[in-house]
Amino acid sequence: MAAVPSDAVRIDSPSNPRVKGLVRLRSRRAREAEGRFLVEGAREIRRALDAGVTVETLYLCPDLGASPEDWADAGVPFVELSASAFGKAAYGRDGVLAVARCFPVDLGRIPWDRPGLFLLVADGIEKPGNLGAMLRTAAAAGAAGVVVADPTVDVFNPNVVRASTGALFGLAVGVATGAEVIERLRREGVRIFAAVTEGGDPPWDRDLTGRAAFVVGREDRGLSADWVAAADGVVTLPLTGNVDSLNAAVAAAVLLYEAVRQRSAL
Amino acid sequence: MAAVPSDAVRIDSPSNPRVKGLVRLRSRRAREAEGRFLVEGAREIRRALDAGVTVETLYLCPDLGASPEDWADAGVPFVELSASAFGKAAYGRDGVLAVARCFPVDLGRIPWDRPGLFLLVADGIEKPGNLGAMLRTAAAAGAAGVVVADPTVDVFNPNVVRASTGALFGLAVGVATGAEVIERLRREGVRIFAAVTEGGDPPWDRDLTGRAAFVVGREDRGLSADWVAAADGVVTLPLTGNVDSLNAAVAAAVLLYEAVRQRSAL
Repeated sequence: MAAVPSDAVRIDSPSNPRVKGLVRLRSRRAREAEGRFLVEGAREIRRALDAGVTVETLYLCPDLGASPEDWADAGVPFVELSASAFGKAAYGRDGVLAVARCFPVDLGRIPWDRPGLFLLVADGIEKPGNLGAMLRTAAAAGAAGVVVADPTVDVFNPNVVRASTGALFGLAVGVATGAEVIERLRREGVRIFAAVTEGGDPPWDRDLTGRAAFVVGREDRGLSADWVAAADGVVTLPLTGNVDSLNAAVAAAVLLYEAVRQRSAL
Repeated sequence: MAAVPSDAVRIDSPSNPRVKGLVRLRSRRAREAEGRFLVEGAREIRRALDAGVTVETLYLCPDLGASPEDWADAGVPFVELSASAFGKAAYGRDGVLAVARCFPVDLGRIPWDRPGLFLLVADGIEKPGNLGAMLRTAAAAGAAGVVVADPTVDVFNPNVVRASTGALFGLAVGVATGAEVIERLRREGVRIFAAVTEGGDPPWDRDLTGRAAFVVGREDRGLSADWVAAADGVVTLPLTGNVDSLNAAVAAAVLLYEAVRQRSAL
């Protein structure tokens, strides 16, 4: 059994200043001021460590089943929390929480040189669960990265991290304004396919192989006109029944896997 | 302008017994005992009315923008709620909530006679948001219905209703045990395609036209062995990167739209 550091700190009170510091990191302002964010859940923290993200401190709640021995190999200082202190700081159920350093998310992170790359562009997404799900699906589909354009939610939001199941860490993520993204995609010779709720071609009627970016926008107002104007192709998933739109993460998934399908036939 | 009933009731206190009755309907036990459920949101309530669901009472919060005049055509008694009373009963932001009658959800609801029908089977889904998203996507894709097998969440859960954006109302939904569903699918000559996280064929390598049911299970433990044994085909979406599974609603969406794609080419 690995040695447990003898200087381990234990916090019982939910009103301890350190616990309050964790709660503060649920706000974007605090994350941006401190350059730190929260990662909840053992699986997600393992993925952060595997991807080389700097994890500063682990917060473990033995009453929820977390064991310091399980994390001895991580080489990260840890603090034990009581169940009430942990519950104040985290929503996770497995008793493991980490504070990690924010890492750069700019367009330079995207591996533009990769032959035949395909990307997801998430435009103006405001629901953290949707953005996280998009990251997870893009990683699963083998996208070279996700570009987050004009975000209203930041990628270090704890609910984005959680919904991504840690895919945020293994994936190239670049955040920029829509104008910057359009300019860069053109410069890099990446074709733009804009997903709109009506009037486009079914994606399987378009050639989605080659360098391509799939742009999916907010559910309530769709893509901005700039994206449609900039698009090399406009695609729409056929809708029937009394449903007027698909969830943005669902639309992104169908497009990405149509790209996977077309590429698998090459 | 339509006449507003002169006997309209207004409730200000969040501790009013009627408000408590609404809160109670957030629990499955109360829904099953009373045969009633909550529908939150103007769009969702309109879809319930359009689909012929019996809406018993509307609860409107003028302080959140709801207007009795907008609902005069519905022919449903309404109650005005203060913002604090409404906030106690509902999570919705548009100030409209309804109590509706539960309707039958059994396998007899599925239009088995429809030529070339395709169905989604949601097996053991426990997250209301996932089940609701599956209903929404199935309706959008033109599935003949959704079969909910061995559910751990009931379809009248308010979060299922909300995530479905009301698609629950326009869609044939049948709930039964896994064994009952398998027996019925076989009897009706519907081929079973079981989605598993590894070892199956990519769905685009299988013929998904004709009478078909796509079975998607819980994320954490996947499909039960009974489904795999009963399947005419086992399909897997290719996964790359450091992601070990797709969200269940995302997997369902990709399968359903692959079926749409294959059918569009017929």
